[in-house]
Amino acid sequence: MTVLVVGSVALDSVETPFGKAENVIGGSGNFFSASASHLAPVQLVGVVGSDYPMDRLSPLQERGVDLAGVERAEGTSFRWRGRYTHDLNSAETLETHLGVFSHFRPKIPAAFRSAPFVFLANIDPRLQLDVLQQVERPKLVACDTMNFWIESRRPELLELLKHVDLVTLNDGEARQLTEKYNLVQAARWIMERGPKVVVIKKGEHGAFMFNEREVFFAPAYPLEEVFDPTGAGDSFAGGFMGYLARTGDLSKQNLRRAVVYGSVMGSFAVEKFSVERLLTIGPDDIQERLRQFRELVAFEEELATR
Amino acid sequence: MTVLVVGSVALDSVETPFGKAENVIGGSGNFFSASASHLAPVQLVGVVGSDYPMDRLSPLQERGVDLAGVERAEGTSFRWRGRYTHDLNSAETLETHLGVFSHFRPKIPAAFRSAPFVFLANIDPRLQLDVLQQVERPKLVACDTMNFWIESRRPELLELLKHVDLVTLNDGEARQLTEKYNLVQAARWIMERGPKVVVIKKGEHGAFMFNEREVFFAPAYPLEEVFDPTGAGDSFAGGFMGYLARTGDLSKQNLRRAVVYGSVMGSFAVEKFSVERLLTIGPDDIQERLRQFRELVAFEEELATR
Repeated sequence: MTVLVVGSVALDSVETPFGKAENVIGGSGNFFSASASHLAPVQLVGVVGSDYPMDRLSPLQERGVDLAGVERAEGTSFRWRGRYTHDLNSAETLETHLGVFSHFRPKIPAAFRSAPFVFLANIDPRLQLDVLQQVERPKLVACDTMNFWIESRRPELLELLKHVDLVTLNDGEARQLTEKYNLVQAARWIMERGPKVVVIKKGEHGAFMFNEREVFFAPAYPLEEVFDPTGAGDSFAGGFMGYLARTGDLSKQNLRRAVVYGSVMGSFAVEKFSVERLLTIGPDDIQERLRQFRELVAFEEELATR
Repeated sequence: MTVLVVGSVALDSVETPFGKAENVIGGSGNFFSASASHLAPVQLVGVVGSDYPMDRLSPLQERGVDLAGVERAEGTSFRWRGRYTHDLNSAETLETHLGVFSHFRPKIPAAFRSAPFVFLANIDPRLQLDVLQQVERPKLVACDTMNFWIESRRPELLELLKHVDLVTLNDGEARQLTEKYNLVQAARWIMERGPKVVVIKKGEHGAFMFNEREVFFAPAYPLEEVFDPTGAGDSFAGGFMGYLARTGDLSKQNLRRAVVYGSVMGSFAVEKFSVERLLTIGPDDIQERLRQFRELVAFEEELATR
């Protein structure tokens, strides 16, 4: 089954303690697509400026990402420039240039409207709501968001929550949105406003998935060399949604497996700049990382007390 | 089998967003003992001043903690005063009064010297080394440490590492000791200096256990109400060592289970002030939390890729 993603198609310039990359392909739409395309066909909706190097997206296309929804508008592309210091924990944004993205109105191509899985990556909640008007009864709709929208579009974001099945957001965003420091309480707050499932991403500290009755936790795979954390969260979402789309199974057990896939795909994303690593891995690499992941968390069940 | 712990027997005054506790029993020795005693007999070595309310330790004694090694010295007891703000993540130390602890020279009672499991809680590495002179070939020796000793007693701490099988320390301490931000690299650095196993505790973000070939990760159990994080790390160590002592099994699989026990016991410690919660739980509570823990991390094994 296909997964439709609406998100940013950007150019990133990133500096980490290990090197620099200038104007590499980035944005939530690209990272999500590069990741999810390992598991299911992807339909990408976004906008680029007339300066965007479209040929750089052809590896995505070859991987099964349908770019028919990537609109080309007169003007400059969305560019982000950021820097990570030695702890690689949070990016310092040096520059954000929205360009054509500031006038983006997603137009979902007719052929995309029946996508059974829809991911509304981090864009203006008004646009996320608008996308939902254009699609036909998806099996699952998930959304992400960020601090900027939580602050500036709170009512629209709360409206959006009523119409999505699942939310992914990071721990800082969950706390900001809910004004609850405790993540169990934060997740409950969100679920009371609509979504049946909340995935809270904690970066290098892994991810929680909450539903009404259960909590699941998956760590981030501990890499010896984290090269560039940019896009890890969107790659996580890509692995998660891609696995759901591939299996078409929304059982609780399968959602747990989807989180594991998210964690695995996120761990690849951070090994190189941009989507570089995501574009070079194959099924064997994914399988091997899954095996390592299992080994990371496995303990035999016998745990009787005294 | 018995576990011997050498650590502080203190009086804590703690302020959290949820309340205040004045002069409650604390210190690494007490938290470790309260936790480990659910799994194995414990021998505690430490020092208190003439002002220490010894009757407050009798619940520990009733739980099977042998206090014959708790020396009573002329002077005042070790007191710590700290405060947590809303995030409960790190304590602000308001006051540390070492009292008799500053002249502490651990004397291991003859009856304790053959303990098969030894935990050297966070005290001066010179004293930790001294304890190792007094005990007879334990099956496993583990130690903890803290920022203060890493800074002020680095050579002695490095000497200690040559003589212990296992180290538990938190992520900040691991980074400070090794000058490596990446925890995989930090663990390797430590293992190159002696210990075969390194457990890195990340507080609310769980714990990693490294050996030469493997990594294991256990999350911290996500509680809806964390009341007071004081002693979580020592309670973790108590659960970990207590489980090893109870089973006498040092296989890799059993060490993983020990980490899970550590995580479970740590999760109880933070539910109330001091060792209060650890003293009221029973086997059924532990069993139930273990069940919840399993559910938290369980996913079915089928994870085939496309």
